[in-house]
Amino acid sequence: MDLFAKFENKLGPIGDYAEQAPGYFAFPKLEGEIGNHMYFRGKEKIVWSLNNYLGLANHPEVRKVDTEAAAAYGMAAPMGARMMSGNSDNHERLEKELAAFIGKEDAMLFNFGYQGMVSAIDALCSRRDVIVYDAESHACIIDGLRLHPGHRYVFKHNDVADCEKQLQRAVEMAEKTGGGILLITEGVFGMSGNQGKIKEIAALKSKYEFRLFVDDAHGFGTIGSRGAGVGDAQDCIDEIDIYFSTFAKSMASIGGFLAADKKILKFLRYNMRSQIYAKSMPMPIVVGNLKRLELLRSRPELREKLWHNVNRLQQGLRDRGFDIGTTNSPVTPVIMKGGLFDATHLILDMRENYNIFCSVVVYPVIPKGMIILRLIPTAAHTDEDIDKTLQAFSELRDKIEQKVYPQEMPNIENL
Amino acid sequence: MDLFAKFENKLGPIGDYAEQAPGYFAFPKLEGEIGNHMYFRGKEKIVWSLNNYLGLANHPEVRKVDTEAAAAYGMAAPMGARMMSGNSDNHERLEKELAAFIGKEDAMLFNFGYQGMVSAIDALCSRRDVIVYDAESHACIIDGLRLHPGHRYVFKHNDVADCEKQLQRAVEMAEKTGGGILLITEGVFGMSGNQGKIKEIAALKSKYEFRLFVDDAHGFGTIGSRGAGVGDAQDCIDEIDIYFSTFAKSMASIGGFLAADKKILKFLRYNMRSQIYAKSMPMPIVVGNLKRLELLRSRPELREKLWHNVNRLQQGLRDRGFDIGTTNSPVTPVIMKGGLFDATHLILDMRENYNIFCSVVVYPVIPKGMIILRLIPTAAHTDEDIDKTLQAFSELRDKIEQKVYPQEMPNIENL
Repeated sequence: MDLFAKFENKLGPIGDYAEQAPGYFAFPKLEGEIGNHMYFRGKEKIVWSLNNYLGLANHPEVRKVDTEAAAAYGMAAPMGARMMSGNSDNHERLEKELAAFIGKEDAMLFNFGYQGMVSAIDALCSRRDVIVYDAESHACIIDGLRLHPGHRYVFKHNDVADCEKQLQRAVEMAEKTGGGILLITEGVFGMSGNQGKIKEIAALKSKYEFRLFVDDAHGFGTIGSRGAGVGDAQDCIDEIDIYFSTFAKSMASIGGFLAADKKILKFLRYNMRSQIYAKSMPMPIVVGNLKRLELLRSRPELREKLWHNVNRLQQGLRDRGFDIGTTNSPVTPVIMKGGLFDATHLILDMRENYNIFCSVVVYPVIPKGMIILRLIPTAAHTDEDIDKTLQAFSELRDKIEQKVYPQEMPNIENL
Repeated sequence: MDLFAKFENKLGPIGDYAEQAPGYFAFPKLEGEIGNHMYFRGKEKIVWSLNNYLGLANHPEVRKVDTEAAAAYGMAAPMGARMMSGNSDNHERLEKELAAFIGKEDAMLFNFGYQGMVSAIDALCSRRDVIVYDAESHACIIDGLRLHPGHRYVFKHNDVADCEKQLQRAVEMAEKTGGGILLITEGVFGMSGNQGKIKEIAALKSKYEFRLFVDDAHGFGTIGSRGAGVGDAQDCIDEIDIYFSTFAKSMASIGGFLAADKKILKFLRYNMRSQIYAKSMPMPIVVGNLKRLELLRSRPELREKLWHNVNRLQQGLRDRGFDIGTTNSPVTPVIMKGGLFDATHLILDMRENYNIFCSVVVYPVIPKGMIILRLIPTAAHTDEDIDKTLQAFSELRDKIEQKVYPQEMPNIENL
């Protein structure tokens, strides 16, 4: 049969309904400078969808360096893979500064975070090795696992008892295969906002031999006394063998990095396929990341402002009786009851009548009958943004509960 | 056992020897503006290692737009994945222009080429589908295949008869599994410089039902009457169902794209994991790519200069009796006999005494006893660069043949 026949009527879980409103629920365009307020379809909205935690995206010093670096180097340099022709003093300097900030011997840049994670898992584990991982791991971890030809065991999200159970199974398997064990989890989970129980999981090392790999995409820059992420927040950086973060969140850039012992990174530098066979991180992005890291380290007031906003928003939601789960990070999920039609009308109502733009998650990503609105407070938001949003959420919840929304897809053609 | 124990003494095929000369054979730094001449360890070299085919990396119009776009948007915008919050008019415009240039209904941008290819293969093929692919496919294709849970058949590099044999096996298998067939090959192979026999392979569609996916990373911008790649060069764009190129070669940028029928890309937009779950292409890179594409289309003199240099270099090498294989693209492999020690001394001699920087490939990437020096001529090179290089290559070959190089690793400490 034709390979493409299966695409005729099936766009997958997101595409199947989003195509009814192109550019509205999927592929919307947010215009204007990145910040608390942006333009959607020509009208100003309070935006809660961007992981610009520290407001660095449009910090004047960042914008200045981004411009100067592009002028100095152009976007083309360096060309080729890091190993062949794409290395520079700036790449090495950023690695040294990241290692020192995180508290590891060395760090290694990735040209892009997603593929860096995929290839790191691939390079670290042989067929004999066994992987143990959290059930809510990000897609890039799952894709790395899918490349792993050996055994793997999943534990219930952030459940240390189940984690131990899976470690026991892994130890038994690794004795048979003659391999080692890699435990992969996250510093902050992007959907629930829960910090991974890294310190408790690391304590299991006294009973089981394994190495701990932590994806701290949402923790880097946001948590810990220095903003150095989950190792800083939970005082356990020495127990994290391999620390990963993307630059796409608090750093408001692209790319990513690992921080670990020299020995590990020396091996990975010569064995990560997506880094050996693809272009190095562009120089203006490296230089821009050096500036972002400097501000992230030296301006605690940005993190303080972020946390002022996080606390005001999360406390406000709790005070109004909203279920925001068990988040202990800036990621703020607001859990409501309702179906797909409720969710689409809710989002439409919120955008058009309350001028608030936020992301929504529905079935099949979460169970049927549940709606999760995910708010990302940042240092760029104001008390007024938060108070308006709290008021809007109360009104929107009332509408959902009073079942005022039609049980059919909204028609956005007439907006 | 400890997961990391295996890294103690084993850096893999490249790392095992390259560590003896850090920053020399692996992770060298090429400094100064990207072009025909750059600096390596403080001294000017003729550089043949960069895929800057059309010389766009430092074209003044490109540099101007790169600077202006970084000033206008910063490197952070847009934030989030394309589907959630990372879409823009510029992204859509670049897609439209790429589709029109390649000659397809639609195009889809990738945030990074490598992971775009991996995820495209993953999204296109279900467990029931069967993949047939060329033995010399790039690492990103191989990683995509590794995610494929179904059957796959490899054909000998660019061998149409073997390709047909594997297609026959694939057809038998697909009848059993109830799936379709995807044939993946390349427009221009990056190591040999051979154009894929796309037209001949496409002709097999009259006998077998399959879809054709072509990675044209090295063909885009370099071959064809319009520079539109292998579909243009072999007059077979309609037979290519899915056309891929990175922006990392002739476009001197990062990212990549697919061009195909609307129906296919509509499906892929909602189902490619590395695009749904990772940040969109930064705006200055999108805007810079629009300018690069404009120059690539409207300045045939850049491609003419490239081909003048390709012909002068390749003819010069052939005239001097060098084996450059069967290349019919700008990629120019120079095949010599010798071992690892010959190769390292040759590269050292070439860099230090002839001031030429080029890449070398040895065992285990190619068979033992073989050395391939890979030259990438570009529009930025001059006749003088080529003539000096030809003379140097003749002298270097004589040294290899007269076995003048010590049979031990060179010590670069004393340079």
